[in-house]
Order: sequence, then C-alpha cells, then structure tokens
Amino acid sequence: MIGPAVGKVPAVSDLSRRFRAIRAFSEALCQPLQPEDCVVQSMPDVSPAKWHLAHVTWFFETFVLKPHSPDYRARRPEFEYLFNSYYNAVGEQFPRPQRGLLSRPSVEEVLEYRRDVDAGVLRLLDALGEAGEAVRSLIEVGLNHEQQHQELLLTDIKHVFSCNPLYPAYRERSTWSRSTPGGPARWLGIDDGLREIGAAAGEFAFDNERPRHRVLVPRAELASRPVTNGEFLEFVEQGGYEQPGPWLADGWATVREQGWTAPLYWVPRDGEWHEFTLAGLRKLDREAPVCHVSFYEAEAFATWAGARLPTEAEWETAAAGVPVRGNFVEDRVLHPRPATTRGDGWQQLFGDVWEWTASPYVAYPGFRTADGALGEYNGKFMCNQLVLRGGGCVTSETHVRPSYRNFFYPHQRWQFAGLRLARDA
Amino acid sequence: MIGPAVGKVPAVSDLSRRFRAIRAFSEALCQPLQPEDCVVQSMPDVSPAKWHLAHVTWFFETFVLKPHSPDYRARRPEFEYLFNSYYNAVGEQFPRPQRGLLSRPSVEEVLEYRRDVDAGVLRLLDALGEAGEAVRSLIEVGLNHEQQHQELLLTDIKHVFSCNPLYPAYRERSTWSRSTPGGPARWLGIDDGLREIGAAAGEFAFDNERPRHRVLVPRAELASRPVTNGEFLEFVEQGGYEQPGPWLADGWATVREQGWTAPLYWVPRDGEWHEFTLAGLRKLDREAPVCHVSFYEAEAFATWAGARLPTEAEWETAAAGVPVRGNFVEDRVLHPRPATTRGDGWQQLFGDVWEWTASPYVAYPGFRTADGALGEYNGKFMCNQLVLRGGGCVTSETHVRPSYRNFFYPHQRWQFAGLRLARDA
Amino acid sequence: MIGPAVGKVPAVSDLSRRFRAIRAFSEALCQPLQPEDCVVQSMPDVSPAKWHLAHVTWFFETFVLKPHSPDYRARRPEFEYLFNSYYNAVGEQFPRPQRGLLSRPSVEEVLEYRRDVDAGVLRLLDALGEAGEAVRSLIEVGLNHEQQHQELLLTDIKHVFSCNPLYPAYRERSTWSRSTPGGPARWLGIDDGLREIGAAAGEFAFDNERPRHRVLVPRAELASRPVTNGEFLEFVEQGGYEQPGPWLADGWATVREQGWTAPLYWVPRDGEWHEFTLAGLRKLDREAPVCHVSFYEAEAFATWAGARLPTEAEWETAAAGVPVRGNFVEDRVLHPRPATTRGDGWQQLFGDVWEWTASPYVAYPGFRTADGALGEYNGKFMCNQLVLRGGGCVTSETHVRPSYRNFFYPHQRWQFAGLRLARDA
Amino acid sequence: MIGPAVGKVPAVSDLSRRFRAIRAFSEALCQPLQPEDCVVQSMPDVSPAKWHLAHVTWFFETFVLKPHSPDYRARRPEFEYLFNSYYNAVGEQFPRPQRGLLSRPSVEEVLEYRRDVDAGVLRLLDALGEAGEAVRSLIEVGLNHEQQHQELLLTDIKHVFSCNPLYPAYRERSTWSRSTPGGPARWLGIDDGLREIGAAAGEFAFDNERPRHRVLVPRAELASRPVTNGEFLEFVEQGGYEQPGPWLADGWATVREQGWTAPLYWVPRDGEWHEFTLAGLRKLDREAPVCHVSFYEAEAFATWAGARLPTEAEWETAAAGVPVRGNFVEDRVLHPRPATTRGDGWQQLFGDVWEWTASPYVAYPGFRTADGALGEYNGKFMCNQLVLRGGGCVTSETHVRPSYRNFFYPHQRWQFAGLRLARDA
Repeated sequence: MIGPAVGKVPAVSDLSRRFRAIRAFSEALCQPLQPEDCVVQSMPDVSPAKWHLAHVTWFFETFVLKPHSPDYRARRPEFEYLFNSYYNAVGEQFPRPQRGLLSRPSVEEVLEYRRDVDAGVLRLLDALGEAGEAVRSLIEVGLNHEQQHQELLLTDIKHVFSCNPLYPAYRERSTWSRSTPGGPARWLGIDDGLREIGAAAGEFAFDNERPRHRVLVPRAELASRPVTNGEFLEFVEQGGYEQPGPWLADGWATVREQGWTAPLYWVPRDGEWHEFTLAGLRKLDREAPVCHVSFYEAEAFATWAGARLPTEAEWETAAAGVPVRGNFVEDRVLHPRPATTRGDGWQQLFGDVWEWTASPYVAYPGFRTADGALGEYNGKFMCNQLVLRGGGCVTSETHVRPSYRNFFYPHQRWQFAGLRLARDA
Repeated sequence: MIGPAVGKVPAVSDLSRRFRAIRAFSEALCQPLQPEDCVVQSMPDVSPAKWHLAHVTWFFETFVLKPHSPDYRARRPEFEYLFNSYYNAVGEQFPRPQRGLLSRPSVEEVLEYRRDVDAGVLRLLDALGEAGEAVRSLIEVGLNHEQQHQELLLTDIKHVFSCNPLYPAYRERSTWSRSTPGGPARWLGIDDGLREIGAAAGEFAFDNERPRHRVLVPRAELASRPVTNGEFLEFVEQGGYEQPGPWLADGWATVREQGWTAPLYWVPRDGEWHEFTLAGLRKLDREAPVCHVSFYEAEAFATWAGARLPTEAEWETAAAGVPVRGNFVEDRVLHPRPATTRGDGWQQLFGDVWEWTASPYVAYPGFRTADGALGEYNGKFMCNQLVLRGGGCVTSETHVRPSYRNFFYPHQRWQFAGLRLARDA
Repeated sequence: MIGPAVGKVPAVSDLSRRFRAIRAFSEALCQPLQPEDCVVQSMPDVSPAKWHLAHVTWFFETFVLKPHSPDYRARRPEFEYLFNSYYNAVGEQFPRPQRGLLSRPSVEEVLEYRRDVDAGVLRLLDALGEAGEAVRSLIEVGLNHEQQHQELLLTDIKHVFSCNPLYPAYRERSTWSRSTPGGPARWLGIDDGLREIGAAAGEFAFDNERPRHRVLVPRAELASRPVTNGEFLEFVEQGGYEQPGPWLADGWATVREQGWTAPLYWVPRDGEWHEFTLAGLRKLDREAPVCHVSFYEAEAFATWAGARLPTEAEWETAAAGVPVRGNFVEDRVLHPRPATTRGDGWQQLFGDVWEWTASPYVAYPGFRTADGALGEYNGKFMCNQLVLRGGGCVTSETHVRPSYRNFFYPHQRWQFAGLRLARDA
Repeated sequence: MIGPAVGKVPAVSDLSRRFRAIRAFSEALCQPLQPEDCVVQSMPDVSPAKWHLAHVTWFFETFVLKPHSPDYRARRPEFEYLFNSYYNAVGEQFPRPQRGLLSRPSVEEVLEYRRDVDAGVLRLLDALGEAGEAVRSLIEVGLNHEQQHQELLLTDIKHVFSCNPLYPAYRERSTWSRSTPGGPARWLGIDDGLREIGAAAGEFAFDNERPRHRVLVPRAELASRPVTNGEFLEFVEQGGYEQPGPWLADGWATVREQGWTAPLYWVPRDGEWHEFTLAGLRKLDREAPVCHVSFYEAEAFATWAGARLPTEAEWETAAAGVPVRGNFVEDRVLHPRPATTRGDGWQQLFGDVWEWTASPYVAYPGFRTADGALGEYNGKFMCNQLVLRGGGCVTSETHVRPSYRNFFYPHQRWQFAGLRLARDA
C-alpha cells in the first residue's frame, strides 16, 4: 500500500540511524521463528515471513540502488522477479498465491541478500551526503514501507500458527495482571461544522492522506473506547451470527459461506471461549478490545447495538490533537490490552486495534497520482475497501498519525482490527 | 432495491388509473416474447421474465392484500415462497440462482395470478376510498417497485437473447436515420460551495434519497454529454484492455479473469464492431453513448482520458433544475440514441444511459432504517456498490428524478450503464 | 453414446414403418409438456426436451440427408452448430452446459424442423429403394440413437421437475394396487468356466458390444431380483450415509461433498419417506426396486450387506437365454414396479431399473474403432465409467438385449439405476 | 496404499537389520534438503518431506508400539491426529490439503520422534524374540510402507522444486555420457491362453495382488522397451496436444482445462525442450523413456501410434520369470536412463518408469478385505484408478515384484510414469 510521500527530507545522520534500527528490527522480529515457520503461506492474503524480509529489501534495491548507485551489482538478479509484489512498471511478478511454494532462497540466503543491500544503501548515503535529497526521500519511503511489512509479518505469522492444531506460540507473553472491569464506554461529542482533515504539508505522509481539505462533519458522538470482547460476546451469545437481521446483505452471505460463528481466532475449549494470540491459546479477556473482526462483523455489531460506525472524518476530528500514544509493537505485548486510563477523555484511539470506519476508501478531492513506478499504484486500491484508523498493537508507534488511512476489504479479518461505536447526536 | 418511501399520498382515482396502466405495461412488455423466452435465467443476476411478472404481483399480495384485505384468499399459497426475493421477515426464499429451473407455474398461470391480485387490489381501493391512506401509500411503493422490475425485465431478456448464437431480436427497431457527427463534448462548470442534495419532503422518493442534506462540493467541470461509442472505441483500439496502466487493481483482475476485450454486447463480425441490441445485432453507432460498461471500465476510461468520474453530489448539482426528459422506455427505442440537441447546456442527463459516479453507495448522514418488512433491507446493500444517476433508455420517465440513486457492483455491466467525464477545475 | 453398428440391414418397408413410429413416439412423449418445460437444463448432465427433439433430427440431417440426398436444403443451417452434441469431425459444438440458455428456436420451430427432415428421409428411402443399403444402415443407427434420447428425455424431465418445489407431475399414473410383500430374494448360481459374451454377428448391436469373445467366469451366485426400497431403507436407517465404513474412498468423499443422505428423489415429508416420480410425489413403495442410486451407493450397500456387485460377464451369463420382457417405456408406468412373478427363476433382469455392475467400462479384447464421424467417439468414453445392464422402466423394449452395455460415471444417479447383489460361491 | 500382507515372517535378526537400514535410508534421502524444503506442499497430492518422515513413524507407533509394547509412552500424543493419513478406525485425520500449513513440529522435532519410535521398536523386537510373529509381520508391513513413502518423498520434492522459478537441484547428478541412438523398439509376442497372475502364497505381497488366479490372455505383442522422449516429442510436434482426435473424452477435457502442451516437467528454453529433473533443468534426452505422463497422455500417444496400452495381465505374463533388475533408487540416478542392453529380450520392464496399463484398478476375483484398521482401506481405492507396473527410478529394488500393482488416477502425472506399447497379434 506504499505510495510516494511528501514532507521534510531527513538529514543523513538521522536517516542512517533510523535505517539501521528499522532494518534490524525486522530481523529481530524473526528471532523466535524456525526456518520452517518462514516458508508457509496459509492463505493468499498471507505472505511468508521470508518473503517479507526479501521484498522490503527488493524495494531498496530496485528504487534506491539500481537507479542511483552506479557500482551496485545484484548478486541474485532473479530476485527482481521473485520479490516484486505488484509494481507493473518494474516488470512481471511471481504470482502472489504461490509465494508459499518457494522453499528457496532459504532464510539464510535472504539474510545475505539483506546484508548486501544494507551495505549498498549505507555506502550510497555516505557518498551522496546532504546532496542526495531525492535518494534520502526514497529511503524514507522505503523505511515506512518496511514498517508496514513488519506489521504484516506479525499479522501473517499469527495466521500461520493459528492453522496448526498445536497452536504454537510466537513468543511467551510477559504476564500482566488480569484486568479489572473497566465499566461502560462513555459517549463523547464532536461538534459539527466544516473541519479540515488530511496530512498537512511539511510532514511525512502517504499520498492517500492528501490533499488536506475541508469536510462537513455533522454533530455526532463517539464511544470513549473500542468495543470489548465482553460486549461482543453478548452479541455472539444472543445469536448474532445466526440471523440476518443486523447484517449487510453481503455480510450475511459471507457469514453463511464461511461458516463464521465468532471473531477469527476465538476457539471454544472446555466450555469456555479462548482466543489464539501470538502467545498461544489464552482465555478470552472480556475487558480487552475485540480484535480480528471484519468490517461486516463490526457493522453488524454496531447495528445490533443501536449505533453505527464513525466516518473517517468524525474519527479524525476526534483524534485531532490527541497524542499518538498507546499499545504499539514497541511495547512487545503484541495483543490488545484492556483500557486502563480512567479519565474522562478518549481512550485507545491509537494502538491496540485498528478501528473500522464507515468510510469507503476513496480519493480525497483533488487527489493526484504521482509519476513513475512508485506512484503507479497510488489510486489502484481505491475501490471495494474501507478505511481503518489509529494503528494496532503490532503497528510501530513511529509509523502512525491522526491522518493515517489504512484500508482492507470488508470480509478481511486476519489483521488486528476492532471497532468504536458512533451515533448521531 | 425497494424501500419505504415518504411523500404525498395519491388520490384514489389517480392511483387506480396508474395501477391499471403500470400493471398493463408489464404485460405489454412481454408481448414479443414466446413462453420459452420467459423461463431462462442466463446468469444469477438475471431473473426470468416470468419471475418478474410474478414477483411484482407477490409484492402487492404480500404487503397490500394479505394484511389489509380480510377476504382475500391466495389461490396459490406456495407462491409466497417461490416469488419472495429477499424479504427475510416474510419467510424463506427460493434460491435466486435457481429461478431458471422453474418451468412451472407457466406463463399462463402467472397471468392468472396477476388477474386475481389486480382484481383484489382494485376492489380494496374502492372499498377503502380516501380513508385508506396507508394502503394507498403501499400501492404507490408497489408501483414504483414494478417499474423497477419492468426495467430489469428488459435488461434481463437482452442478456438472455445475447447468449443465443441466433441473436434473436426482442423487437424490430423502428428505424431512425444514422446520426451525423455530434462533435466533441464541452466542459460545463459547477460552482463550489455548500449544496443541498437528496429528496425534499413531500415528494415520493425512496428512503436512500433521504434526508436531504448539505454537502461541500468543490469547483469542477462535467462533460456536456456522456462518452460515445466512438470515443470508447479509441480506448479499445489503443490497447485499453491489454495493459494494467489505467485500471484499478480489482478492475484489472476482473478484465483478466473474465477475458474482457470490449464493452458487453460488442461483437466483432466481418471485420467490424457490431453491438447486440434489443433489435438484434447492429453495426456500432459511433455517435451513440457507450453502454453496458462496468464501473471498472468507466473508471479506467476516465483515467485514460485524463479525467475522472463525477461524484454523485457533483452530478446532482449539475442536474438541479434540469427537466426530466430524454430517451426513456416510453419512447420504445430501447437503445441509447446519439445526442441530438446542440444547445450549450447539459445533454442526456436523463435517459439513454445510467451514468456511473465515483461515489460508493453509502447512507446519507442521518439516514434511518424504517420498521417492518418493507424497511428490512433499506441499508442492506450499502456496501461494495457504486451510485449511478439519471436513468436509461429502458427506465420509465415517471420513475426517475434528480435525487434518484441507482446502484450496482463495480463489475456488473448487463444494465444499461455508461459514463460522463468530470475534472477538477 | 452412439456408435456404428453391424448387423442385418432392415428392408425398406419395415424401416419406413419403424421410422415413422419411433419419430412419432418422441413427439408423443412431449405431449404432457408445456413449452416452458422444454427449455430448462437443471444441471450440465441434463438436456432440455427441446434439445433432444432437435438433436436426434440433426443426426438424420447430418449423417443421412446431407451426404446422401443431393437435393436436400437445410432451412436452418445454423442448427448444425446448435444441435451437434460432440462430433468433432462435424465441426464446433455449442457448449453443453449452456443448452438451457437457448429459448429459441421455439418448440414449434423444432417441430417444423422435424417435419422437414422426416419428409426428406422418407423421400430418400423411397427413392433409393432396396439399393440404399448403406443409407438404411445409417437410418437404423439413427433410430437406435433416437431411442436412447427418448430415455434421456424422460430421465431429464424428471430431474427438471424434481428441482421445482411444486413437484409437478409429468403424467398422472394409472393406479395399480399397492404391492404385497414379495419375500426375500433368492441366490441363484451361475457355473464357472469359459463363457462367450458380447453381440453375435448378424444382429444389430453397438460397437462396444463387439467382438463376441470368451471370458473366464468364476463360480458365483446372483440375487434373483434387484434390491428393494425396503432393503435399502434399512441401510439408510442404520446410518449407512453417516460413516465411511462400507464406502469406497471416492464414494465417501462424494457423500460428504454432496450432502447425500438417501437415494436421489427420496424426500422426507410428514415423518415418512416419499419418492419423487414422474407421477409426482408418492409414498415410498418398499417392495419396488430401489432406483436413482449411484455406483458408489450401490457398491456401499452391497459391501454393507456382505455381498458385492456382479461383473458384467456374470450378469450376461445369467441373462443368456432369458427373454427380454419386463417393465419398459411401452408399458407407460415410467417407474420401477415390485417383482411380481413368484417362480424360482430370475426376476426383473430386463426393465424396471438399470443394474450397476462391478465392471469398469473398457474395450472388449480386439475392439476396433470404426472410421468416420460416426465412429469418431466409439472408444472415447471408455474410462472412468461403469457398466450397467438390463434396461429400465423408461427404456424401449425394442432397444435392449442381453449384450447391451450402458455406462455412467460412478457419482451419477439421475438415471433410473438400481442394483442386484452377487457373491462368490 | 498399504494393506495387510501375507507371506513368510522374517527372522528377528534379519528384520532388525532391515529396519535400521530402511529407516536410515529415509533420513539419508533428506540430507540434501534444507528445513525450508521440508515444509512445502505444492498441491494436494503432494505431502511435505517432513510429513512423510513423521507419518511412517506414526505407522510403527500406532500399529506396533501402542498395541504391543505396554511400556511405550508417546511423548507427543497429538501426533496421532496430525500424522494419520486416512485410517478412520484410528480416529480423525488432519485434512490432507493442509499438510503444508504445519511449520511445527520442526524437522528436528520429527527426527527426535523417529529416534524415540526406532528405539521402541528395536527394544520390542529384542524382547519378543522369535515369539513375536505377529509383531514381526506388522513391522514387515511398516517397512514396505516406508519404502512407498521414500518413493513419494522424492516424487513430491521434485514437484515442489519444479514450482520454483530458480529450479533448485535436489542433488547434482553424477554425469553419464549422453546416450547413443538406441534404435526402434521391437515387438515381442506373448502367447494366448489361460495364465496365472497375482502373488503366490508364501511371499510378501500386498493384499491387492491376491488371490493368485487364472486369467484368459489373448495373443498379443508388447514393445521391447518403453516409449522414449524422442518418440513422444514427435507426437507433441505433430500437434498431439492440439486436436481431440486420439484422446479419450475425459482426457481431452483435462488437456483443455489444464492447458497441457507436453509432459509435466518439459520446459521450453532458448528454443529447445528441457526437462526438470532432480538434478535441475537439463536438455531433453531423446533416448531416455518419456516420464511424467498421465494415463490420458499415455493412452492418446498409443492411439496416435496405432497401438494400445497392454493390460496388466499381458504385462505380468511378459514379466513372468524376468529378473527384477534395473535403474532403481539404490542406483542414485533418480531419473530414467536410456535402454542400454541390446539383446533380443525385454528391456526396462523393471525400474526407470512405472508403466501405465489399460487395466482399471479393481479387485481380483475372490479378493477379500482383511479385518482391523490395517485392512480398513484395502479395497477403498478400487475405483477410478488405473494399474501401473514395474517400478521406477525412485522405487526401491527390494520393494517391487512382477505381481506388484501400483495405481493412480488417469490425470495424475507427477509420479515417474511412462508407457510401453502393445498391439493385438
């Protein structure tokens, strides 16, 4: 979902430091994995861990080294084809649903590939110095791209492990005390009027966040925190998945076809609901935000609860000025946590779970596609998907901002997605 | 796509007259058909002509006669199940993709069913007189519902005939002279600002057109007329269907999967493009609006042409105050005609072809679902579809209005849909 | 399943008489049908009644009139493509699964086509007289071909009607008294040794019945009559469809995929098993032979019963010398009847139900493919199918013989097929 | 395809030695593999290498240790479910098409599991001594079972590697000189008459080879050696895959659906045909037997060549008395070699390629299913498959015999299968 970004170009020293740190973090995320784990593609939406490690590297090789580093020699030219995701301007792509067939290159070979490219990028940065503004801008995009794939890597390995009846744990969880009841969510109002949304000039942002523009927001109320497992469980237990009443027509068709009876990763065991997590199978925590629901489930729950989902303009209006803090990948919890703050303000707008909005993912007024391969797919996905906001527990804190627009198809639920209720006021 | 409507309730005499006329028109549309033609379902989206005749009758039986006419006796109680489309509150439905398996009831039996129900409704109208306001309101909804199915009936029989290598004609076309070149479209501006869209109180309208509300419209320009076959042909001949460049990702995937190479119903024959019409196979008329394109094709054409599709707010702003006149089903042409007016204003906003907009079909702010079975599906379809505006050559003139929102999935193209270009100004 | 036949060539007068009779019988079979019934194709294996009427006519036009009648002019040349089933040497074929999309030509037009071709064939027969031996031989093949399609027409229309919840009757059945218990089947032995099977020279037979050849038959016993509904019901009630035990692996996979719980056309209603018949829905007759079971079900039942299916050599050995009499289409019962004879010999070897054998459909030793389009497909189907013997209640008595080999895929069950048990002795 | 076997029970010392050798050979076959290679399942027919290693071990654990070794404790009880292939009597099975989703247990854990079970079996053998006849018989079955999976392991890893555009080599091939033209095959006659086929008492054999029985064999001729790549290439180049002429109907449908244009693993590169082998991509050797053809391709080639496939009775008659020698897995060539002997007798009846016969896989007369889980599936696969004879270049020499019946579905071609021509004499 990468696209060209506009904003301040970072200084060389800062960029070198961040390049090393982010590249190292990708590999650190793979520490708990066996080579066998890094190959499996459990469904077409999922990519093997090995593929993520290689593809983000391919990005730097293709967009930074090949055009800008005259002495760079690709040791494995065939990787251009293997690890291209969907850039038609770059060339043919290995078919996505077959990524799990590639046992070679091995993890070790991919790590070698990373070392080659890392050395090349750092050499180039040094060589160009502050003169290489365009290159630094491309590297900045590449780092944001890599952060997206770090999130996907964790999201995907969770799905892979969930298909195994042994329910392997990615990592044992540092324990935290079971949560005490958090009480009901509160309704917080937002004012109506013409509001500005989107990324302002001068900061890094993806093209789909621009241009910043005015939008007419109606008077509305949003819940102070996301919907919890306990609240969602009530929907399940009252037959939510058994009758078409609250569902969109396409949602109900999906429920029937897929045989859904609860959120993804909910597992009944010994008469109790459990949840598969990156720390293995755990009892369902009723105070934690519900996670791994599709748009269809989020929308049906909201309808059943007599509410609706917020639009992205409402969400961004609420989030304006709220600091980007929360349970992110840097916290190493890797699972949504119950709301803990008890103030009277917004809770968990950032981190924990991505929040489905009611807004189809479309271009902002005046949106323009950039030139070249990097811009090739800017608008390509602006159809059939819905916007999610706020980041989740496997997102990087340094990657998210109030204007950030994530998007998924309405049936997808392997990503860490939940919801927050809204209503007309 | 029916939903409860609000508006002035028609007087008994007027309603009786319109009831007879609209019911008779459905049967008149079937005059050119053989009994064999009325059975076939050529794809799941299509319903047999016989089914349309019966289902609209079921609607009056179910929502008007059964609850309001104590002495009404259903002669064929099993029709309740057979001809329910998707009203879960009414009961189980016969599966949609199997409608073409029902050779019985025969066309003759369906016509008998119609006579029974017609007599019942007219008797009820008489009996209640001006007192039966609720009933009259339901009948009004039923008549609008029947007009929608009249359009579908023609749309569907065209698809059925198109699957037959004999290319049968529904009806020989009264000839009109081949059109003279109409010249390029002109760009007409619309002013930016806060505009009101949606149906005003006091007129008949479907619930998805309400509430009337303000929306911020940017400065923009729309083409004076829809895109023509000749213009679209250029896209085809320049390889438009052969490279991913201008396509949405989902659109390109559809092109590849379906093997699309031109709009639906375009047929190459003897070295020339022909077009299957309700009057059989005809040479492609380059001056007539292109028709039977999907949203994906409309969007790709607009991108290729350096333009975009209008939003529904832009379209409705343009159409405000323009009289609802054009090439409609009442004209009996049953095919889009070239633009003939040469003034400096809007052309063909109404009739000829439905126009794809860039707007996903979502609820207007403040939209509320009505109670009861009729309201059951109000919002059910507000996902994954796009809005079309203006009506086409098989729509009833009395059925359409500036606020009217039609909607289809982005891959669908058997309906009479074309496009009008827009651009930022 | 037509193939060239060898045998005595019939005299002109006899052939003319039979031509008129068999051609008329096809049309008589369509008397109870509405035009709407003649269009529907309820699954790819089924062809519309109209298609059967036209295809058998196409056969005479293509193989008799076009090559042998210089003055024959096809009034509808496009029918060559529309009604070719699978003769590649003749040309392209309209895709089989789309036969149900052809509302045109209408039934009336097909009947006209029949009249044209009938007149042509009879004229040609007259003109050639006893000289036209090759033509008479082709006509003989065409009549046998038409008899096969008469059986298919009834088989197919039963399937079409079975998909309609109204359960229409093709024809009200002349009642017969409910049967009295027939008692258990008896085991009748066949001697081991080298036996001759296959069609002898000098009689009409299809090529797959030749050459007559010796085969080593082991000592065995066959049941005196087919398995009854009552016997099969016991299998159903004891969980036969619920556990893999008696099933072939491919059979069990089919049971699971298709959700089979009983023979095709068995319908539970008001706590009792009913059966859909050409006379509508009737209570299951426990004394009548079970019908509409697949090879998988026949094989599983036999295994469950501690027996097996007979080989085709065993069956033909048993049938040698038994007169071809039984419940055939000429009896107009159109449904299997309980065994009525109480002698100590074979019962129902011919008529009532086709009997699945354990024998894969393969070429007899020394089998040779004939030349030309008629021979084109002789061996084409000798893979993945199983042999059935004896004819059923919708087969023509004049069409069947002891050496006759019918064949179907092991999962198919819309044809009138049952089974007879066998065991080693 | 395992089934209970009857024959002489081996002595303890001999069995211990063979147990160690065969178990070690499985692990030796995995030496060239990376852990990543051992996980991938490239299609449902293929199992990951890791799964093969575990499943054959599960067999000894389930059928030998659990019932016969009272002190055996399963360290990983969950493996019973994970590594059961299709034994319903043992319990539920993990779904076959999802074997590639199991990254855990890791290769290392599987090897530990093997060590545990090996120790247990050897301990049990020692403890029982010559008394444990039943156990020794089970171990014998288990070893034959493991040999089958050794062949599958190589067959499957070849398919896995073939899906990778890097075309990895399983092992570099020890070179052998390019072959000199071998000259045409000769026709060798077999006499007609009543012949005995099947396994005699007193030798190890699978149940499907029994009972030995008489069969009537016609006079026929078989080719002295299998069809070569060069001969098959002629079929390809003369449009063999482009017209339905020589194909079975189901075969031609498969060619069209799958887009086949040549045998599996034939790859055009730089204007020349290459072949993917376990030693990587090599130029096609015209003298070597064609390999990786389906039954459909074998049958079509034979028809095109004016010949046919032999029946299994003909093949076994030819092979009677021929010593079981040839290019087997012990030779470590792992690819079919050209015929080298130039005598006037049979060539390559054993080894190199499995030979498709014309015979459907059915029970021999008098075949009986054994009791218990091991016998559960004896006859389960006797439908829809064809018999192959003789063993191939990845079969163990000690595993094959003249009566050995292998079987596959007619569309399958990832196994090392070729063909030998036959004709009536």
